[in-house]
Amino acid sequence: MRAWEKNFRKVEPYVPGEQPKLDTMIKLNTNENPYPPAPGVLQAMKEFDVDKLRLYPDDKSDILVGALADYYQVDKNQVFVGVGSDDVLGMAFLSFFNSDKPILFPDITYSFYQVWANLYKIPYETPALDDSFRIKKEDYYKESGGVVLANPNAPTGIYEDLTFIEDILQHNQDVIVIVDEAYVDFGGKSAIELIDRYENLLVVQTFSKARSMAGMRIGYCIGNKDLIKVINDVKYSYNSYTMNQTSLYIGVEAVKDEAYFRENLAKIMEERERTIVELKKLGFTCTDSKTNFVFAKHKTAPAAELLEMLREQNIFVRNFASNPRISNYLRITVGTREEMDSLFTAIREYVM
Amino acid sequence: MRAWEKNFRKVEPYVPGEQPKLDTMIKLNTNENPYPPAPGVLQAMKEFDVDKLRLYPDDKSDILVGALADYYQVDKNQVFVGVGSDDVLGMAFLSFFNSDKPILFPDITYSFYQVWANLYKIPYETPALDDSFRIKKEDYYKESGGVVLANPNAPTGIYEDLTFIEDILQHNQDVIVIVDEAYVDFGGKSAIELIDRYENLLVVQTFSKARSMAGMRIGYCIGNKDLIKVINDVKYSYNSYTMNQTSLYIGVEAVKDEAYFRENLAKIMEERERTIVELKKLGFTCTDSKTNFVFAKHKTAPAAELLEMLREQNIFVRNFASNPRISNYLRITVGTREEMDSLFTAIREYVM
Repeated sequence: MRAWEKNFRKVEPYVPGEQPKLDTMIKLNTNENPYPPAPGVLQAMKEFDVDKLRLYPDDKSDILVGALADYYQVDKNQVFVGVGSDDVLGMAFLSFFNSDKPILFPDITYSFYQVWANLYKIPYETPALDDSFRIKKEDYYKESGGVVLANPNAPTGIYEDLTFIEDILQHNQDVIVIVDEAYVDFGGKSAIELIDRYENLLVVQTFSKARSMAGMRIGYCIGNKDLIKVINDVKYSYNSYTMNQTSLYIGVEAVKDEAYFRENLAKIMEERERTIVELKKLGFTCTDSKTNFVFAKHKTAPAAELLEMLREQNIFVRNFASNPRISNYLRITVGTREEMDSLFTAIREYVM
Repeated sequence: MRAWEKNFRKVEPYVPGEQPKLDTMIKLNTNENPYPPAPGVLQAMKEFDVDKLRLYPDDKSDILVGALADYYQVDKNQVFVGVGSDDVLGMAFLSFFNSDKPILFPDITYSFYQVWANLYKIPYETPALDDSFRIKKEDYYKESGGVVLANPNAPTGIYEDLTFIEDILQHNQDVIVIVDEAYVDFGGKSAIELIDRYENLLVVQTFSKARSMAGMRIGYCIGNKDLIKVINDVKYSYNSYTMNQTSLYIGVEAVKDEAYFRENLAKIMEERERTIVELKKLGFTCTDSKTNFVFAKHKTAPAAELLEMLREQNIFVRNFASNPRISNYLRITVGTREEMDSLFTAIREYVM
């Protein structure tokens, strides 16, 4: 061991995520949208003034913050944007969770909550979901350093209504409550309407799923202006320019086209319901997903075997082998009708 | 004070950087390149396939890493890319500086080194530059947690040759030495040629200055493959997708056009030398800058007064009021010949 190696940061070795690049593949493993971004995005990209790239981007991300504020009918000082919701969530953990008491999030939820808690040395507890993968709200009726809930939750897909979220807020008025709504547009109702009543509520969303822009890395959060000021202060304190000019410029276009957005969502939700019906016919149980994926377990065929069989046919889905509670489940992104038909055919031939 | 406020992260209040947006302004305050990106960037942007934006970017940034590896004649596993060199430097601090001994960097240098050290709770010492703003290499002949040098240094503009860098490396073989070369293309020689001999050397560069791409947020570092693996492991451990698809795609074009790059650099270096001559005629002393800015002090007129006078004429330059050693210096970005002539005229009328 060379002397300088002893000061390396110790992290779990990196296992590359599966991002296959085959022309014929059916990619249902990372919850991407099967439809392209709004047509205005194409136009904006063609008209983008590249000469301006010599200048730093606006560090306040004003045009994109403004577009989001208009869309959600809030003030600009209630909106923060970042490089994907991962950037926004990480920044929120760093900004708001500086207590000796553990923060709380479910045992089965977005895996990066634990990662950021470890990174920033934030103590945490992970109350178990019940046997139906529902959050037990009483587990959050106690002193903590903060609360983080994905709603709909991932990878379960299960959505809790705003009465539930409000109950959690009522019981946690002394800490920040983050509601991560990456998938809320696929059938849920956003907690953004609660931010005026609960000044400790921060709602996080993303352009990666419903807005077909995973490739641009745009996320945002909305909350009381005092929270947004803190997160801005923290961000500016160590990295002033994160959002590049193209993200800011074409992000605005992705927010504008409401008709395209709604049509896109309707197609995905319809296909999700059809997928659940078809998978049940094939011997699966599925959660009541309000996302762009289904979470499904077959009555006999192990998830790992199904995943491998599908992979051999260039159909990629996701499983969670390392977590015993859900190791036999598949998370399958809702693709186009044609893609899902190919999936059903492959599974039918294997299990029937 | 509301209860949840006590867990906010404490940071210095944010003072917005001056990013004026006037059509007629002459912007010489943030070291941007006065010339647009390479012509291939425009073409690439127009041809960009926006439909692909629905997909996550390649988390390995393979096309851009490959283009940089080709350019610098190194292996792909010796290159890491990030969202501007701030992102790369911050990640390097987090990855390599986990010692109880202080890291070392000069008292006058890029202000963010101190910020990241504080953010990640890394102890540090800041040996003073000598009276000519030169690094005293003997200050770095001691046990430490690591060394960080900007070369050329900022805001002094002073470059030390590779013999100097190699001497620092010889005396610091047990820790990581970071050489931040944001400005090296404006007349310096890169330490990249030393990475095979010094496995503990990490060289950081950026697209923001010489490549006219501040607006795209692209930075990179080059070093021994073991260092690059660690920084990748750390990055992947908490944020897999930071580089958006447009950055990766058009970043490649900015690296390709060597003729445009060299022509652009030659114009700026020529204008820098003329600027130094002109400013001396007007009563300034200037450092021997090897960057795209000059660092200048007037014999009688205080920097703050000059800055204010110029601002009133829509000419923006930078000073460093909070640091007594350099509070009377101006940092003036090298713009076009016309822009610099306007600056000289304004100063001439004021000081003569």
